[in-house]
Amino acid sequence: MEHPEASICTAEGVSKFKETALFQDYHGIPEFRQAVAKFMGKVRGGRVKFDPDRIVMSGGATGAHEMVAFCLADPGEAFLVPTPYYPGFDRDLRWRTGVELVPVVCDSANDFKITIDSLQSAYHKAQEANIKIKGLLITNPSNPLGTFMDKDTLKNIINFVNEKNIHLIGDEIYAATVFMEPEFVSISEVIEEVECNRDLIHIVYSLSKDMGFPGFRVGIVYSYNDTVTSCARKMSSFGLVSSQTQHLIATMLSNDEFIDNFVAESRERLFKRHEYFTCTLSQIGICSLKSNAGLFIWMDLRKLLKEKTFEAEMDLWRVIIDEVKLNVSPGSSFHCHEPGWFRVCFANMDDYSMEIALSRIRNFMVKNNETMVPPRNKLCRRTSLKLSLSRSLSRKMDNFIMSPSIMSPQSPLVQART
Amino acid sequence: MEHPEASICTAEGVSKFKETALFQDYHGIPEFRQAVAKFMGKVRGGRVKFDPDRIVMSGGATGAHEMVAFCLADPGEAFLVPTPYYPGFDRDLRWRTGVELVPVVCDSANDFKITIDSLQSAYHKAQEANIKIKGLLITNPSNPLGTFMDKDTLKNIINFVNEKNIHLIGDEIYAATVFMEPEFVSISEVIEEVECNRDLIHIVYSLSKDMGFPGFRVGIVYSYNDTVTSCARKMSSFGLVSSQTQHLIATMLSNDEFIDNFVAESRERLFKRHEYFTCTLSQIGICSLKSNAGLFIWMDLRKLLKEKTFEAEMDLWRVIIDEVKLNVSPGSSFHCHEPGWFRVCFANMDDYSMEIALSRIRNFMVKNNETMVPPRNKLCRRTSLKLSLSRSLSRKMDNFIMSPSIMSPQSPLVQART
Repeated sequence: MEHPEASICTAEGVSKFKETALFQDYHGIPEFRQAVAKFMGKVRGGRVKFDPDRIVMSGGATGAHEMVAFCLADPGEAFLVPTPYYPGFDRDLRWRTGVELVPVVCDSANDFKITIDSLQSAYHKAQEANIKIKGLLITNPSNPLGTFMDKDTLKNIINFVNEKNIHLIGDEIYAATVFMEPEFVSISEVIEEVECNRDLIHIVYSLSKDMGFPGFRVGIVYSYNDTVTSCARKMSSFGLVSSQTQHLIATMLSNDEFIDNFVAESRERLFKRHEYFTCTLSQIGICSLKSNAGLFIWMDLRKLLKEKTFEAEMDLWRVIIDEVKLNVSPGSSFHCHEPGWFRVCFANMDDYSMEIALSRIRNFMVKNNETMVPPRNKLCRRTSLKLSLSRSLSRKMDNFIMSPSIMSPQSPLVQART
Repeated sequence: MEHPEASICTAEGVSKFKETALFQDYHGIPEFRQAVAKFMGKVRGGRVKFDPDRIVMSGGATGAHEMVAFCLADPGEAFLVPTPYYPGFDRDLRWRTGVELVPVVCDSANDFKITIDSLQSAYHKAQEANIKIKGLLITNPSNPLGTFMDKDTLKNIINFVNEKNIHLIGDEIYAATVFMEPEFVSISEVIEEVECNRDLIHIVYSLSKDMGFPGFRVGIVYSYNDTVTSCARKMSSFGLVSSQTQHLIATMLSNDEFIDNFVAESRERLFKRHEYFTCTLSQIGICSLKSNAGLFIWMDLRKLLKEKTFEAEMDLWRVIIDEVKLNVSPGSSFHCHEPGWFRVCFANMDDYSMEIALSRIRNFMVKNNETMVPPRNKLCRRTSLKLSLSRSLSRKMDNFIMSPSIMSPQSPLVQART
């Protein structure tokens, strides 16, 4: 409202209507590319710069992933993907490209971290099955886990793809959702520190999660490979961002004050919500994977399974859907190797809905296993985690913990559909 | 400006910002689908109704064509396409789908009309070459010809696809550009009158030409086949229209008065520009195919070729580009069967640029072949054509013919990039 020039339908912006309506250059509006490149650097702590000339737009991350797959692999060739992974990849990367996904098994014993052993093992199994591996796709921060990789893991991964001479696609669409220390590390930073063939490095980005604008369909392919950049840009004709939206986003993202506040406020709200949600679950006897990013928690319901099978997981899932009446996603849909894990989106509801959800879970736990539920005053298992917040924000946070209802239900991120 | 509620960035529209930014259902905003369906009926003279539930959105006509190709054909299978055709089809339909295009040869002797003989001949040649034909793609009105098909031709075409049991894709993205009688006939009308299997009928539409909004990336697949509609809708995830733009378009297209005026004004301006352009060309000895739609004329420069070859056409094209300094497209790029034809976009420049363009052509003709140039007062060969305009519009038109400079250079259509 304070920036009517960001719209082409206001007195202040209408002089741009004609030019914008006619703009269909697949390079995108220069101001849009510059603003997106700047924003990508900003949400990575300003430790790395992105070149506006490498910003290629696409129809959301959905379109971006498909474009990268079309660019890097022929039908029948494959990408390694650590599990659990976003089920949409099975559609986005495979459906129209004919490309295959080969799971890399990650384990709860290791907090689902990606190890070089698991990568080597998946790679060699694929070789034995005569499947040509063209790349490795990592989602960092992870959907569904809500975790992200440390620098050493990323260095190992970059060494691995270099050694195999395969591509690395880093899906970093949750980069700005990291709400607790340590800071997020992007592959764009790590390639500055290690020897690697940059032609193998590609980033998929989007504003759907970090800005909470899934409807605007702003996806980005950022490749360090000139040939891929050029080819992806030609492909972007199939899913360009509306020039009206490019214009709005260009103005919005180039407003430093707004963006700094927005990202900080989003992180704070995510932190508070995450803290409250996980503490409450912990109090009623439900553990979850320690996490500090994203919009999800990875809930451990292994103890509730009648047996350690995916059939039992589906049975439990149906009970949660039909009887507890909560919309959670079973780990098997994320190709999780181990039954009993469920993804819960903690960010897409208002406080009132959250309280209903939590009370439903509590009643379910009480009803099903009185003995399993610890006393309500059990200490939250996450108290050791610290948020990197200014003092004033910390005070607000303390305030919140006393009175969770002050959390605004209006945060775009808290409302983001996933 | 009179409808601030059409924008989500105004005091009147900002209450829709959050809901719109979060909206990512691939069915599209219901009001958007309803408005597009209504508009599609309106530009077809209100003689046919479109079902909002069959409106599937895509990233422009570019994305729409690719989606239809993915839905209807496997790699290696083919569509028949009458020549000359829009060169973008070679990319849009083939690049990522692996589908092939088989040209149907149309002839200048017959004003490039599609005949059943030419369709049969192309179909049988493909069969002999072991190419499986899955459909026929027609562009109606035609880019590059600026012509459209009469009802009998369309009936014959529908009978042909029924007999062969292949699909018919009607690209009707220039439906509202018909600026002279007779009225445009859509395949959606003809299938009401002939026996046919509607599962074979699909329409590709867009607002890029008819509304002059190529930047907004509004493409539409309208299929009468439920399976195709459902599959295309899932595919539309790769190129959804920005919800911000859906909201604007929904409001704009549902405003009957605005749309009626806009379409009438566009047609009038196209008529005037076309009339002036073709008359002037005729006066300096350049003929063109008789046309009454679209943004192009199909210019006959066969007399200027040094020999009847495509090499000679390219030589002439280079002279026109490098020496005459006009951006025209050689017929060979449209797979035209006969050398010497060139596409000229008459609608994408202001009056001043048009006068420069025409004076360059005139000088070129004078310089190259004094004897070929008829006297300037030669009668325009198109005076027999009539525009279907109201009396007041006809008066304005007369006014224009006296004073071409009153043509507004602000018409979105006149400025549309193609």
